[in-house]
Amino acid sequence: MEKKIILSGMQPTGKLHLGNLEGALKNWVSLQDDYLMHCCIVDWHSLTSEYTNTGDLKEKVFQMAVDYLAAGLDPKKCAIFVQSQVKEHAELHLLFSMLVPIPRLARVPSYKEKRKELGLDSYGFLGYPVLQAADILIYRANYVPVGQDQLPHIELTREIARKFNSLYGEIFPEPEAKLTKFPVIPGIDGRKMSKSYNNDITMGESSEQTTSKIMRMYTDPKKIYKGDSGHPEECPVYLLHQIYTPDYKNLYPVCHSGELGCVECKKLLAKNLNKALEPIRAKRKKLEANPERVWDVLESGAKRARKRARETMGDVRNAMGIF
Amino acid sequence: MEKKIILSGMQPTGKLHLGNLEGALKNWVSLQDDYLMHCCIVDWHSLTSEYTNTGDLKEKVFQMAVDYLAAGLDPKKCAIFVQSQVKEHAELHLLFSMLVPIPRLARVPSYKEKRKELGLDSYGFLGYPVLQAADILIYRANYVPVGQDQLPHIELTREIARKFNSLYGEIFPEPEAKLTKFPVIPGIDGRKMSKSYNNDITMGESSEQTTSKIMRMYTDPKKIYKGDSGHPEECPVYLLHQIYTPDYKNLYPVCHSGELGCVECKKLLAKNLNKALEPIRAKRKKLEANPERVWDVLESGAKRARKRARETMGDVRNAMGIF
Repeated sequence: MEKKIILSGMQPTGKLHLGNLEGALKNWVSLQDDYLMHCCIVDWHSLTSEYTNTGDLKEKVFQMAVDYLAAGLDPKKCAIFVQSQVKEHAELHLLFSMLVPIPRLARVPSYKEKRKELGLDSYGFLGYPVLQAADILIYRANYVPVGQDQLPHIELTREIARKFNSLYGEIFPEPEAKLTKFPVIPGIDGRKMSKSYNNDITMGESSEQTTSKIMRMYTDPKKIYKGDSGHPEECPVYLLHQIYTPDYKNLYPVCHSGELGCVECKKLLAKNLNKALEPIRAKRKKLEANPERVWDVLESGAKRARKRARETMGDVRNAMGIF
Repeated sequence: MEKKIILSGMQPTGKLHLGNLEGALKNWVSLQDDYLMHCCIVDWHSLTSEYTNTGDLKEKVFQMAVDYLAAGLDPKKCAIFVQSQVKEHAELHLLFSMLVPIPRLARVPSYKEKRKELGLDSYGFLGYPVLQAADILIYRANYVPVGQDQLPHIELTREIARKFNSLYGEIFPEPEAKLTKFPVIPGIDGRKMSKSYNNDITMGESSEQTTSKIMRMYTDPKKIYKGDSGHPEECPVYLLHQIYTPDYKNLYPVCHSGELGCVECKKLLAKNLNKALEPIRAKRKKLEANPERVWDVLESGAKRARKRARETMGDVRNAMGIF
């Protein structure tokens, strides 16, 4: 049976962190054997908010590709590529733009939120989900691995597919969101790990930096001295232990009893985290020392993506009667 | 000295009429020796209003190319091509979309008018002038021959060029509108000739059809019988005489005096109009009998346009730091 198709993408915001690794990349890696994966670095999308600040875009794209590969994405199995290398995304986006009413776009929750939060009001920012629909449908993807917050975009993508199909003929499948539950990864200040909070530990950080960040990490505020009783269920350090410390359950009672101090607990986490990150870091170093290899991966990924995108666009133009 | 660059375009709405011929095509033909002309058939633009009705788009594109050539555009001198054949328009449009605030687009007069008139509210319709800016700037055009109603679009194009240049470096010239005064060509009902009024005489119409339409033409309502005194300055037939009848001035006194009847006057116009259209019709017939030749012109026009468009996009991507 032919493999089903997946499209996944991230904006090139720079080096990825543990939240990206646990929340997305590891999932992508687990899917690459059973699906035809298209892992896209969506640089055009990043321009919706970062258009005044593109000086380091290339370096960010490079770092993201390094992170993809270091996390275990295999370029033999999945197409790893940069969105702007496949012009057909822009072409399909333009065609889709004729099918989507403005009030529909203005109702997209992420638009309403980010518009206020970031003060964005560009035409391209409003069209963000239209471009996303093109990213997905140009590969006729069946699934899109996303978080809960992306569901409205997938719904719009399905609407666009339906509208196109009803006007011009059955060209697109209606892609489904592939929701997977992931732990929310806490940053070192206890909030959700996020680059914008400056509380992140990146995948490529050195073992010393990682240890230093873990040692500074926010813990249960009710446990001040070693002897105090701890509340692991409220402690972000314990959350990370649940991922990186195989026998993390043993820590619960000794923290709760006060026997285990925070310093010791953090040292253990740093050790286990460093152990888990070690192969990723080693792979990162190797790739960074050999940038040509990374650019080659992106080049050949774009070639494969382009082939499929062009097939779709051929069908699209035929269906619409475009020259 | 290098020739200055012109971009001009029309939506493929079907066969062109006398209004298009006198108001645009003849002007383009007169410019093709002194400028590097890019004559674009903007099929993507036509989707802003005609996206539900694309079945005959290819035929419309073909007919428009035939009209361009029959009117005297020389494919050796100017690039005649179809917009959707040069994907770079879509790419640049996407990049520009990040630079244009929505309120700016909502203020464009043609948007406000047509939105009401045609009930359009798609995302692509709002972005019409952004795509137009991409059409113009991708060739770094210096001039755009337009009518008064298009001036706000040229102004927006200049704004986009300025904004891009200030953010990323001097890539685009600020194109200027090339306004030329043309007579308003009346349709057979006396209103402005327009396909949508169904009052037009197309460039390819037979001499019989043309004569029949002229004979049915609206004239001065105050002149009912031959002997009545006419008012040529209010008569659309006289307006056409001014274009197609070399010694039209001689008609004024005999119409005014009542000596010249409307039937005779129209017969004379039909004769002169047919004479003027004869070479165009002959060329049309030849081209329609040899469609391969027309498609070849569009193909090689697209090649030339693409070459220039790709040079611009290379500079654009370099300036923005896009991979």
